[in-house]
Amino acid sequence: PDWEIVDVQGNQTLKRVFRFKNFKQALTFVNRVGELAEAEYHHPTLVLGWGRVEVLWTTQKIKGLHKNDFSMAAKTDALV
Amino acid sequence: PDWEIVDVQGNQTLKRVFRFKNFKQALTFVNRVGELAEAEYHHPTLVLGWGRVEVLWTTQKIKGLHKNDFSMAAKTDALV
Repeated sequence: PDWEIVDVQGNQTLKRVFRFKNFKQALTFVNRVGELAEAEYHHPTLVLGWGRVEVLWTTQKIKGLHKNDFSMAAKTDALV
Repeated sequence: PDWEIVDVQGNQTLKRVFRFKNFKQALTFVNRVGELAEAEYHHPTLVLGWGRVEVLWTTQKIKGLHKNDFSMAAKTDALV
């Protein structure tokens, strides 16, 4: 249950916070998720801070969650 | 006046949104700001989305803005 469903400006969104030892490791993770996003052509919002990355998946076209968002969440987990 | 001062959970914060043609260019900018942050050892929060990066500078130790935050904001502008 690491992912939760939250409301972001009216859009249902899958959200998980990943924690890291420092900024650099968090940035590396952002790049890995970015590569995945480009490969699948579905892009999350990523909030990068010191030692943490918040990943948010949603499908703006339907203002909510498509099964693809759940698939991307699982693929995101595999990048840790 | 591209930077604005906003309140983020009680901390005064410098915020600017930078816009890009696509996700990849936005990600490249995140990496450039990340390099700057590591070099100066002062780290922003970066919100990466499709074609946009929100940069937030604050100094948690004083729960607000230090002159260094303004300096980092100027250095961020120079990376565009």
